[in-house]
Amino acid sequence: MVPETPNSALPILGTRRVCQIAVVVRDIDRSARAYAAFFGLPVPPVFTTEAGLKVNQTYRGQPSDARCKLAFFELENTIIELIQPLGGASSWQEVLDQRGECIHHIAFQVMDTAGKERTLAAAGIPLLHQGAEPKTGQFSYFDARETLGLLVETLEGYK
Amino acid sequence: MVPETPNSALPILGTRRVCQIAVVVRDIDRSARAYAAFFGLPVPPVFTTEAGLKVNQTYRGQPSDARCKLAFFELENTIIELIQPLGGASSWQEVLDQRGECIHHIAFQVMDTAGKERTLAAAGIPLLHQGAEPKTGQFSYFDARETLGLLVETLEGYK
Repeated sequence: MVPETPNSALPILGTRRVCQIAVVVRDIDRSARAYAAFFGLPVPPVFTTEAGLKVNQTYRGQPSDARCKLAFFELENTIIELIQPLGGASSWQEVLDQRGECIHHIAFQVMDTAGKERTLAAAGIPLLHQGAEPKTGQFSYFDARETLGLLVETLEGYK
Repeated sequence: MVPETPNSALPILGTRRVCQIAVVVRDIDRSARAYAAFFGLPVPPVFTTEAGLKVNQTYRGQPSDARCKLAFFELENTIIELIQPLGGASSWQEVLDQRGECIHHIAFQVMDTAGKERTLAAAGIPLLHQGAEPKTGQFSYFDARETLGLLVETLEGYK
């Protein structure tokens, strides 16, 4: 028999695993070299995301065509992601403009992003920026700066 | 026979495990309740650190008596630490004043903090703030904001 669990024992996102720590940077090639040296890892490939409008990207409720460059470092217990915004309206550019290079978000793998969006909104954590890439998955940034002091990303469907 | 490893394959700190993600906050009781609800965990106890001068604390090369309150959330793969500065000169207060509530640092367990300090300085990552608590261990914050976009903490001797 499974003991009865109070609601407060369930994580809102269904997980307590931080799958990514993401840092917004001005020059991803420079930052990728610095992270590679720091962690003793090869300099990773840099990807450019699809045009935002091709992946139904929205930012603050409006369609956004913003793109970014990404690079990933697989650490022992999580992944560090570097993000260089390439212009256009996005949470990437917003955070870089407001605070300079810094941690942009921590990420969690979820199921049922739409359900999580409703639960987070009820907890005072509104959606800020999202997109869905049909071949890969859906990413959503939630603005928990007032409650948790950071942005939270949910990832659904990414391998 | 161990294959020869190029220096670039060694992490500078000897580890690629992020043992803590720390968030600087204005009101730790409020934030601890918000994090507890978010992660479905009990509200943890809040600790107040020793007076800085009792633990040989320095900040930007000067002795500092600053203290803070701390609370910890054990997640699946890392720990989230909340830090509320209690006044005095410290990196905790500096980051809170400059950027508001946000991620203060990511932390790594190390051996030989003094050796790591020399290696980091040579890599352009200077010491910012540190202290040693005889009963527990040594904490050191390094300013990697120019190179990695964040502060790095080393912890030595903490259980």
